[in-house]
Amino acid sequence: MNKQDIASIIEEVMDQLKGKRLPKDIVPIAVSARHVHLCKSDLESLFGEGFELSKKADLSQLGQFAANETVTIAGPKGSIEKVRILGPARNLSQAEVSKTDAIKLGLNPPLRESGKIEGSSPVTLVGPKGSIYIKEGLIIAQNHIHMTPQDAEAFQVRNGEYVQIKVESDRPVIFNHVLIRVSEKYRLEMHIDTDEANAGLISGGQQGRLIKNEESL
Amino acid sequence: MNKQDIASIIEEVMDQLKGKRLPKDIVPIAVSARHVHLCKSDLESLFGEGFELSKKADLSQLGQFAANETVTIAGPKGSIEKVRILGPARNLSQAEVSKTDAIKLGLNPPLRESGKIEGSSPVTLVGPKGSIYIKEGLIIAQNHIHMTPQDAEAFQVRNGEYVQIKVESDRPVIFNHVLIRVSEKYRLEMHIDTDEANAGLISGGQQGRLIKNEESL
Repeated sequence: MNKQDIASIIEEVMDQLKGKRLPKDIVPIAVSARHVHLCKSDLESLFGEGFELSKKADLSQLGQFAANETVTIAGPKGSIEKVRILGPARNLSQAEVSKTDAIKLGLNPPLRESGKIEGSSPVTLVGPKGSIYIKEGLIIAQNHIHMTPQDAEAFQVRNGEYVQIKVESDRPVIFNHVLIRVSEKYRLEMHIDTDEANAGLISGGQQGRLIKNEESL
Repeated sequence: MNKQDIASIIEEVMDQLKGKRLPKDIVPIAVSARHVHLCKSDLESLFGEGFELSKKADLSQLGQFAANETVTIAGPKGSIEKVRILGPARNLSQAEVSKTDAIKLGLNPPLRESGKIEGSSPVTLVGPKGSIYIKEGLIIAQNHIHMTPQDAEAFQVRNGEYVQIKVESDRPVIFNHVLIRVSEKYRLEMHIDTDEANAGLISGGQQGRLIKNEESL
């Protein structure tokens, strides 16, 4: 074994430890503000019988939209007004807030993937025609990356895997446990909440670099 | 050169790339809520002639204290009440807020090391006996680690150097550009703001691991 062999071993080790740069590793970042998803019956409790959401704007993920309607989220220590409802209606109502919001409300929602609300925090939602107390449904959203199967192949990742995302900003940060979510319906985009955005001084339109090897540090 | 030699070369490369675990690498983390430092003349404008701050509690850094007195910080889009004043009085008044606070105020303070307020954002401070508009002084605090020269030696870092701090929490994060500040007067402690704490779901009493090699990712 000569010097050349040793150099190539070292190079390989370095690549592996660094989490080898992938051919594709850039992910656009979107910041999710606090929002609410409602089931049909809760929507009617808050806005009246037969009520349907009206679309304010399409969201980047297919079929999802921001409604013109908003609600107030209330907890034992405070409330937050004008929280946007996202459509279409879901099977279960759910409110996604930041930790900063949760402290203001005086509630302790768990960190969860959207839709996984079993055993999450109760919360009060107030609309123009009534209010509801849901026994579970308040969560802090787990940061995640939406991507298509084609993206997943290019990034060499799988649905359900966790990766790092490194963001170069004025206050650079590495998100260290970011969930990969793969579906044909998705468009490539990382979703973070406002606390994560503000910690990294990240505004919409910024990009992160996906790093596969979570244990490289 | 035999296999043993190659193995030890590889081990050395791995250690260097990983940012070799230091004998000492654990840093306690403290969360700084929004606060204000006032010069004597601004204190008197807000609280009356001859006024002196009264101590509510000592802070971890020597000689610093939280005062009983608070002020309101106001901007074009909103205001924040009951912002704690920290003593003793300084030469220049300064208010440190999170990015979340800055958005609420409608102001755009720069990320700065405490005390470096030249060209920072103007802001209005309101007290019980008057209010002042300071032309500069509103900042978002650069995250940093206070330590003694003895700590710096153990961590193998210097005053003014930037390091990474890795935090293991429910939402693990790596702060990627953390300033080292060394003084005999300091006590070992990393200071982050509430946005950084909430992004990492970090509460007081948590610890981070200092990683020297900023370019390891």
